[in-house]
Amino acid sequence: MTAFITGAAGFVGSNLTDRLLALGHDVVGFDNFSTGRIQFLTRALENPRFRLHRADLLDLEALSQAMAGADFVYHFASNADVRFGTRHPRKDLEQSTIATWNVLEAMRTNNVRRIAFASSGSVYGEPEIFPTPEGCPFPVQTSFYGAAKLAAEGFIEAYSEGFGFEAWIFRFVSLLGPRYSHGHIIDFYRQLREHPDVLNVLGDGQQRKSYLYIGDCIEAILTATRQASAKVNIFNLGADQACAVNDSIGWICEHLGVSPRLMYSGGKRGWIGDSPFILLDCDRIRSLGWRPTLSIQQAVVRTVEFLEDNPWLDEPAG
Amino acid sequence: MTAFITGAAGFVGSNLTDRLLALGHDVVGFDNFSTGRIQFLTRALENPRFRLHRADLLDLEALSQAMAGADFVYHFASNADVRFGTRHPRKDLEQSTIATWNVLEAMRTNNVRRIAFASSGSVYGEPEIFPTPEGCPFPVQTSFYGAAKLAAEGFIEAYSEGFGFEAWIFRFVSLLGPRYSHGHIIDFYRQLREHPDVLNVLGDGQQRKSYLYIGDCIEAILTATRQASAKVNIFNLGADQACAVNDSIGWICEHLGVSPRLMYSGGKRGWIGDSPFILLDCDRIRSLGWRPTLSIQQAVVRTVEFLEDNPWLDEPAG
Repeated sequence: MTAFITGAAGFVGSNLTDRLLALGHDVVGFDNFSTGRIQFLTRALENPRFRLHRADLLDLEALSQAMAGADFVYHFASNADVRFGTRHPRKDLEQSTIATWNVLEAMRTNNVRRIAFASSGSVYGEPEIFPTPEGCPFPVQTSFYGAAKLAAEGFIEAYSEGFGFEAWIFRFVSLLGPRYSHGHIIDFYRQLREHPDVLNVLGDGQQRKSYLYIGDCIEAILTATRQASAKVNIFNLGADQACAVNDSIGWICEHLGVSPRLMYSGGKRGWIGDSPFILLDCDRIRSLGWRPTLSIQQAVVRTVEFLEDNPWLDEPAG
Repeated sequence: MTAFITGAAGFVGSNLTDRLLALGHDVVGFDNFSTGRIQFLTRALENPRFRLHRADLLDLEALSQAMAGADFVYHFASNADVRFGTRHPRKDLEQSTIATWNVLEAMRTNNVRRIAFASSGSVYGEPEIFPTPEGCPFPVQTSFYGAAKLAAEGFIEAYSEGFGFEAWIFRFVSLLGPRYSHGHIIDFYRQLREHPDVLNVLGDGQQRKSYLYIGDCIEAILTATRQASAKVNIFNLGADQACAVNDSIGWICEHLGVSPRLMYSGGKRGWIGDSPFILLDCDRIRSLGWRPTLSIQQAVVRTVEFLEDNPWLDEPAG
């Protein structure tokens, strides 16, 4: 199989690239390196079964040409930043929604009919049911990130119905582990390295969220694409627990051996569109036999270890 | 109040224009006349409180300038064609999703914070619950039209959360009545005028759908925007009954005095993405005191009468 991976130099994309190469598949990576890191592809680039295209998904012609000959598209490129939607709402529209539409069009012209998509638990907005199942009541969006992902899901589903595509849509919680490069842990880590005695925390620290270790996430994606075969297959992916921001602060500080004074910005939400509680019902993926192997605490510690081992992450992306 | 109406020369937009002018408001209309009809604005154009801009929503600068001074945006412009999504999927993306994003951006720059949006029951795809309530299980999209409307809803909700907008989102069934200009009734009417002895019907004629008379729809919109005041207000708008395509054929034929042979294309769906059954739970809008005044049968007959009275509708739009 030849896999085409958008966002191949990103957190999820690069981990999947390595895994699919290890399984013996050919992989074509596509990334505009707006947030992707060439270092994440060091191992892949040594593999003759890997090819990399440095281009933007908004360039439909470049995308269509790059996709020629692919059997399966893993569409993981996206604006990765949930937090700054109100600063540049067009970024979510372009990088998540229009980019996805381009991926679908390129698939249609190349006659590629299978797509796995990295959506997000953000599409649930602020749900009323916890853990939140895939079929929860029709949600109301609270973030540009979630709205753009929901829009992408909808177009993927319409292409599946209209053009006979098969789709696997994954609604992730926040992911942790090697190649993690944005989110609250890197923010806390950087702060504590600069000033170990003070930690500024957005919100009241009581936001509770579920997380998933990247290795477990990749195995879940492989499990679902192997075993689920409806026209549209939607899966929540997350741990069965949530932890509070304060829990994760405790684990990070313990690992680093620091005891900072905690300065809370206050309020239940860290930013506009932040969900104060995220916990997904993952029975559907579990029914296929998948289980996470690492606890959230273990995943947090592994993430900090990765950041300690890779100080070059402070340099600009590219 | 100054109302800014996109799609002002369309079916819903022009009826709302007349109604708001009659209520004493100022109205600024915006239409690219891709499907809008200048004849629908004959009365409005005689009113000094009406101004019309002929431009495209994809031209953000023209849109922002036209919107200056508005208090309330009624965003009713859209690709109106549910049926031909697979022929030109980009049309739905551009005319429904990107156009809506432009409307929201123009509102932000003009500091207009109230929007009513014409969404569609199509966002429910093929639901499992009938009548389908606003909070039914998270739907899967089956049409480009529905996917593009869902995407627009999501961005409107994100702007409401992110920038303090107030939104009224209306999920319509198919609308009937004066200025109706696309859909199965005009298709049947034109066929029967050409060859009264044969009627070609898409699907098996047993698709059941709910409809709403345009006058009742406009009153529902006014009722909701006056009385509902959450950040995001979502309302189904439809009749409490559904009728089969065969019922509506019977009423049309009876009115026209013809008895054609019915030729069915077969299958449960008239086209890819067609919903074989549409019936919305409208308790939410009814709880505000609104009731439809016309039955579906009455609305169908009024629509045929409108078509008989306006043969110029066969001419190209503009």
